[in-house]
Amino acid sequence: MTSEEIHASIYAMGQQARSAAHALAKLSATQKSDILRAMAQSLRDSSEEILEANAKDIAAGEAKGLNGALLDRLRLDAKRVNDIAGGIDQVADLPDPVGEKLGHTDCPNGIQISKIRVPIGVIGIIFESRPNVTSDAAVLCLKSGNATILRGGSEAIHSNKAIAKALQSGGEPAGLPAGAVQLIPFTDRESVKVMAGMDKYLDLIIPRGGKGLIETVVSLARMPVIKHYDGICHAYVDKAADLDLAVAIIDDAKTQKPSVCNALETALIHKEVAAEFLPKLAERLNKRGVEIRGDERVLEILPSAKAACEEDWSTEYLDLIISIKVVDSLEDAINHINHYSSQHSEVIITRDQAAADIFQTSIDSACLFHNVSTRFADGEEFGFGAEIGISTDKLHARGPMGLKELCSYQYRINGEGQIKDSKRQENV
Amino acid sequence: MTSEEIHASIYAMGQQARSAAHALAKLSATQKSDILRAMAQSLRDSSEEILEANAKDIAAGEAKGLNGALLDRLRLDAKRVNDIAGGIDQVADLPDPVGEKLGHTDCPNGIQISKIRVPIGVIGIIFESRPNVTSDAAVLCLKSGNATILRGGSEAIHSNKAIAKALQSGGEPAGLPAGAVQLIPFTDRESVKVMAGMDKYLDLIIPRGGKGLIETVVSLARMPVIKHYDGICHAYVDKAADLDLAVAIIDDAKTQKPSVCNALETALIHKEVAAEFLPKLAERLNKRGVEIRGDERVLEILPSAKAACEEDWSTEYLDLIISIKVVDSLEDAINHINHYSSQHSEVIITRDQAAADIFQTSIDSACLFHNVSTRFADGEEFGFGAEIGISTDKLHARGPMGLKELCSYQYRINGEGQIKDSKRQENV
Repeated sequence: MTSEEIHASIYAMGQQARSAAHALAKLSATQKSDILRAMAQSLRDSSEEILEANAKDIAAGEAKGLNGALLDRLRLDAKRVNDIAGGIDQVADLPDPVGEKLGHTDCPNGIQISKIRVPIGVIGIIFESRPNVTSDAAVLCLKSGNATILRGGSEAIHSNKAIAKALQSGGEPAGLPAGAVQLIPFTDRESVKVMAGMDKYLDLIIPRGGKGLIETVVSLARMPVIKHYDGICHAYVDKAADLDLAVAIIDDAKTQKPSVCNALETALIHKEVAAEFLPKLAERLNKRGVEIRGDERVLEILPSAKAACEEDWSTEYLDLIISIKVVDSLEDAINHINHYSSQHSEVIITRDQAAADIFQTSIDSACLFHNVSTRFADGEEFGFGAEIGISTDKLHARGPMGLKELCSYQYRINGEGQIKDSKRQENV
Repeated sequence: MTSEEIHASIYAMGQQARSAAHALAKLSATQKSDILRAMAQSLRDSSEEILEANAKDIAAGEAKGLNGALLDRLRLDAKRVNDIAGGIDQVADLPDPVGEKLGHTDCPNGIQISKIRVPIGVIGIIFESRPNVTSDAAVLCLKSGNATILRGGSEAIHSNKAIAKALQSGGEPAGLPAGAVQLIPFTDRESVKVMAGMDKYLDLIIPRGGKGLIETVVSLARMPVIKHYDGICHAYVDKAADLDLAVAIIDDAKTQKPSVCNALETALIHKEVAAEFLPKLAERLNKRGVEIRGDERVLEILPSAKAACEEDWSTEYLDLIISIKVVDSLEDAINHINHYSSQHSEVIITRDQAAADIFQTSIDSACLFHNVSTRFADGEEFGFGAEIGISTDKLHARGPMGLKELCSYQYRINGEGQIKDSKRQENV
């Protein structure tokens, strides 16, 4: 396709999505739930076509020499398709976020102002190889009254197209507005650039994927972008920590699922407890096969650990590796975290409530835990029902991003003819 | 200055602002109010220096041939400086937005999650010729716990520097962290570009000024931008309107202050009332000296009106000009508005509550009025105490943007050692 064709094609989708968004904003909660259930059923009914399409992606991936982890992310089977459909039914059952009154003001002049939650409009989702995102993202956007334009990676293009087709063909007879869920049917790199410039039709872009993708979108986008960057999460073991509890939390946060963004990367240990605590921690982490990279003071206590270099403090390992540093004080821990953190999630382990309060009011991160594993930084755990990701941004949505965070608001103001300057009109 | 010097200078300011933001986030409400009052007093005490600096800007502006309106915006006098200081005292008296609990969840597993309003961090304000913005913007950001980097226009550079100096020298002895309020002391165009790329130190940019400035910032910025674009505001006179009330509202919204963004630009009249209403409206608007630009059906009723062209429907006149169109239905009015509006403020005039409900739930704009002048789309009128502007964006802040909208939030999660998978740890 030429640049002009890509541009024309995506702008036509944008225009359709904008019309669909106006129609979607008027659907009732029940209408949206009915559409979602029809989409889930259609996905189940289309399982065979979806798996055939997926087989093409897998074959192409193998031919291209994709590694095992990537192929795993790409692969669907009947259970997986059924799980995706089950996820849609769960979203259908969630409370509708749209239309809720968020505030009300009775003005002295008799004007009544209501602040109402409304959809954002059209959301662009740019994602990489997981085909389930096609459904997950479209469905969360739809529940919150938004139209979506999805742009998936080339590795999953056949699977994505089959899933999008099933969602559309199931949803439309149930009342899904045409253009409400659209997948860009080609994967030219140019399409990301066109989406990023299309602020007329896209109110928000959410890039889901690696740093390179996010960086490209951030540098090109004319509209808001909500980033889900890495999680360089920290644990601080205070001098007043319950040391067994600290071992348990660090073990859980580091090793229970190391590949996710709310897993731990760095532990900071107060100097007064380091000599007692570090051997206990090392013993546990050794059993889990975790490599320890420590600063000088850690190495004095744990001579078998590797030496950490400057780069370690800002690395998201997503692996069985942890960087550990001994700090002189709570304040030093706070300064280290404010300097190196990706502002995702941090935990203090202490029995000292005053220390916990200082930690929680001094660090500029989305989630600040006290005596709880960072693995709880998650929309499901927070009771959001579902999440589209965990925002490391500070504007609009911070931390776990659920249905409410996929909405905007609007003021509706009612009166009986109030004007700003009635004197001016007395003797016109 | 060379590009490298500009870059180094602004990055040094960014680093200082980030440190200041961490310190600001910990100040109590009383500490911030005390600092603000000291800044106000310092501004009063520095009135002479500020007016001397302003005289230099005025002289330079006259020499450059700036027009009268621009010189008016630029000009300060003793009363104006005193008003700016009074504005600071008012902000000092407002409730502090930081630290408020926005939500709380008791999870079944015993974890307690609190959602707390916190400052955004560092906010960049890029503005044009009004020197009062130096104070207004810095003060609202400070009250909400944010550090600011201000970049004003070259026309007001001497005034801006004098005001910033007064704010800093008054605030610092009262506890203002160094670097919390900084003005870029030069006006090279390059500085806007450097700020737009400095996402490491700037969490948000708010451009206040004309379309050209906003466009430049939007196309370059790597961080969120909250735009205060134009207000192409509409009135729709329904078939069930009280016609006298419609005249009063359109008169007020169009003529009480035509130069502002919440002033009216277009009126849409239901065909069933057009023949009776348009002559009434024209009579009033003629008395105000308003030029009417109508579509064909308007011209049939008001033959002396000018013909509107396509461009009129998307023009923010900010002047005594109005475009008027006859529509067949409420739906046509809604479609016209959703197509041409800048999503700022619209009003329906009707006695039919059902029509008002449809209007208010079908239009994608920040403020939807029913029988109220659009001139009330304003932070003061909404009870916000003060506003930094009116956002035409849909993410984070929409419509009047006050202190709460200058904040983010953070989750603080407390527990007693909860971990994600305790089974895993039983027999380690």
